[in-house]
Amino acid sequence: MNAIAYAHDHREEALEQLKHFLRIPSISTLSEHQEDMQRAAQWLQEQLTGLGMERVEIAPTPGHPIVYAEWLQAEGAPTVLIYGHYDVQPPDPLKEWQSDPFTPTEREGQLYARGASDDKGQLLVHVRALEALMKSAGGFPVNVKCLFEGEEEIGSTNLDAWINSNRERLAADVAIISDSHILNEQQPTIVYGLRGLSYIEVHVESARSDLHSGIYGGAVHNPLQALCEIIAQLHDNTGRITVPGFYDKVRPLDPEERAELARVPYNEDTLLEETGAPMAWGEPEFSVVERTTARPTLEVNGMGGGFMGEGAKTVLPAKAAAKLSMRLVPDQDPWEIATLVSEHLRKLAPPTIRLEVRELHHGWGAIIPRDIPPMKAASEAYEEVFGVRPIFVREGGSIPVVATLKKELGIDTVLMGFGLPDDNLHAPNEKMNISMFYRGIETAILFYQKLAEVM
Amino acid sequence: MNAIAYAHDHREEALEQLKHFLRIPSISTLSEHQEDMQRAAQWLQEQLTGLGMERVEIAPTPGHPIVYAEWLQAEGAPTVLIYGHYDVQPPDPLKEWQSDPFTPTEREGQLYARGASDDKGQLLVHVRALEALMKSAGGFPVNVKCLFEGEEEIGSTNLDAWINSNRERLAADVAIISDSHILNEQQPTIVYGLRGLSYIEVHVESARSDLHSGIYGGAVHNPLQALCEIIAQLHDNTGRITVPGFYDKVRPLDPEERAELARVPYNEDTLLEETGAPMAWGEPEFSVVERTTARPTLEVNGMGGGFMGEGAKTVLPAKAAAKLSMRLVPDQDPWEIATLVSEHLRKLAPPTIRLEVRELHHGWGAIIPRDIPPMKAASEAYEEVFGVRPIFVREGGSIPVVATLKKELGIDTVLMGFGLPDDNLHAPNEKMNISMFYRGIETAILFYQKLAEVM
Repeated sequence: MNAIAYAHDHREEALEQLKHFLRIPSISTLSEHQEDMQRAAQWLQEQLTGLGMERVEIAPTPGHPIVYAEWLQAEGAPTVLIYGHYDVQPPDPLKEWQSDPFTPTEREGQLYARGASDDKGQLLVHVRALEALMKSAGGFPVNVKCLFEGEEEIGSTNLDAWINSNRERLAADVAIISDSHILNEQQPTIVYGLRGLSYIEVHVESARSDLHSGIYGGAVHNPLQALCEIIAQLHDNTGRITVPGFYDKVRPLDPEERAELARVPYNEDTLLEETGAPMAWGEPEFSVVERTTARPTLEVNGMGGGFMGEGAKTVLPAKAAAKLSMRLVPDQDPWEIATLVSEHLRKLAPPTIRLEVRELHHGWGAIIPRDIPPMKAASEAYEEVFGVRPIFVREGGSIPVVATLKKELGIDTVLMGFGLPDDNLHAPNEKMNISMFYRGIETAILFYQKLAEVM
Repeated sequence: MNAIAYAHDHREEALEQLKHFLRIPSISTLSEHQEDMQRAAQWLQEQLTGLGMERVEIAPTPGHPIVYAEWLQAEGAPTVLIYGHYDVQPPDPLKEWQSDPFTPTEREGQLYARGASDDKGQLLVHVRALEALMKSAGGFPVNVKCLFEGEEEIGSTNLDAWINSNRERLAADVAIISDSHILNEQQPTIVYGLRGLSYIEVHVESARSDLHSGIYGGAVHNPLQALCEIIAQLHDNTGRITVPGFYDKVRPLDPEERAELARVPYNEDTLLEETGAPMAWGEPEFSVVERTTARPTLEVNGMGGGFMGEGAKTVLPAKAAAKLSMRLVPDQDPWEIATLVSEHLRKLAPPTIRLEVRELHHGWGAIIPRDIPPMKAASEAYEEVFGVRPIFVREGGSIPVVATLKKELGIDTVLMGFGLPDDNLHAPNEKMNISMFYRGIETAILFYQKLAEVM
């Protein structure tokens, strides 16, 4: 029996295995889930050991552990490094989930759960592909190293240092990551560009404690109002970011690349249909595809202060805070951008309040050459399973490890996504299309087989 | 034994009684405290019956009940209507309280608890004054009617209708309310002006669910950003409200009244010391006292959206909301102002988002003549206990019942406050100065005695 047939015959087992993985609430950002993070790492270790990987270990870091495994018996064949992450985003707002985020639930061909697509489902695609190859042929066509981290959703705080300390052990010819989405079920896409990220928090204070708005209102600057006034100045009315120097290092889009991005069958109508937004927004001189993948952005990810419970409370709050993140494109430096934005925020702060900026985490963007052999292997694997050639696209999200792998190990990464745009990543009702999960396993099998041929 | 001596000898009993009252978490705005509201009303009923009031009843309303009682045996003497409220604000943010908000705790001459000053402590001043008069003289020098409601903190939703249906029963010559503060422990003040209130909620939505900021950021208008941009336009950079028509009905301050308000020993330095704010804010052509008492304001009482938990979440939220309230001065109409602000918000809303305004509750401001006989009685009572004549001031807060009593019963209200400016009303660590509580009881006794003489 060949690997594809094996995978086909063991689909239900694969789905049950994914559900097991999804039941572990491995939320890296919440300290009360520390134990669940350990459980998720142990569970992964067991799966990798079970399918025949060697030197499987849970490597401690100052934060959540890294799960590492290897299999190096494909003499003379290239070595591929598989990266994935077993941590997930918090499920808030909980009440908008139609089923419990940590009780995987099938509805109309979709599997709903936090992490279903980002990234447990896509990580397991590779675990199942390796299992199919091992069970059907007794080994892999390439040498394999697995690097699964537990801090992707909190900025991979300890990953870079760990990779740096384990450079020889991690040596490989190429990396593969499935942590992105394709255009739609019919049209696969290969991501060759990623945005970087800077994430900061802004805190504004006026009085030392909450005040009665009737007694002090009108003479003390309301911190929520002040924060609104500051945030409102970060974009001009065309959606362009006003922070001085923000666009200085943005690599201009050349006409050839713009023409290619224009071939992506995605426009304002698609955007409005997918999101339900009443109207598109943003820099008018760039297309929707360019705005979301090839242009930097500044978002308010959260903001709060004062009383937001039921009913009315006439409070003049003492504090207000917001979480801001900037999506960056080559060649913007995330640390430099964080500094520029922080300096601008401090400049905008009036003397009637106190403002503090805290930097949370940063990551570089990346662009991967479209013409290297592993890209060919990926393209052919997709075409064989989906029946059409994939389109090369840039993606708006951030996978900072791509830049780290290039810097530390000197290797390029193939971003082979099996998610879909409506997977509700980081949002309520996250899901994985079950058919995409199955086709992902087959595509990964073919990729590993073709990699041995092209490299 | 006269009433003052009785009150003096029963101080500890009075304080214990107040602590009992404060242990009932009668938070009118939170539906889970429905039963506590009933308990508070019953407790009040028992106290009034116990001291000798007649026809004591818990009158149901569509919301929280009204506690009513009367004693009408002072033939030929005037009738005074005592108003107070037994409901309190929510205690959030809980973690900033130094002791539990519903476990009254004495520290350095202060009694800390939610409602200690607003208004349970000040309401009980009158209950204790009546008790002292009854126990020492077998009756009151005036006829007394008590009207204690449980919905003051949520806009007295059902009070106006109840007063309107009980006009004959409530007929009186004057009303007295202790639900305000005096300047400081040495200098009593009598409030003759109150601000009105309009309270609304603004809801902004873009997408139908939360989005990944990496995938959609840059092409969908962030609702938090949009709400910031809208709120930032509600004031100009001098602190003046920009809503068209907002100031049209504001009665101008004449030079005589401005001169009187200038005598209040309160300035920017006092404000900064009390609040800890780094600098005063607001309309530069008005003094701090005028801004907080005689000028209308617009405050953001709460705002929220997106992820504000620990760490980072790269979400583009679907929704954002804010609670806004306007403090109003004669002759602004709260309903008209709510309409003006709502219309302006809708005009400011860009087509890239959906905006909805919900009106929460409204109340009129008031100005009471300073030369009526009950004001003389109050002034003399204060002077006898504190040793100095009180100053007449306007207050920034809202007590809409004052306008209702004038409209429905044709009577003026004496606002005899026993709070202090640092009582932390509506904020963590609310407290009542224990000495003020005792002096309040004595001042109230004297007020009732003098009222019988001057009217």
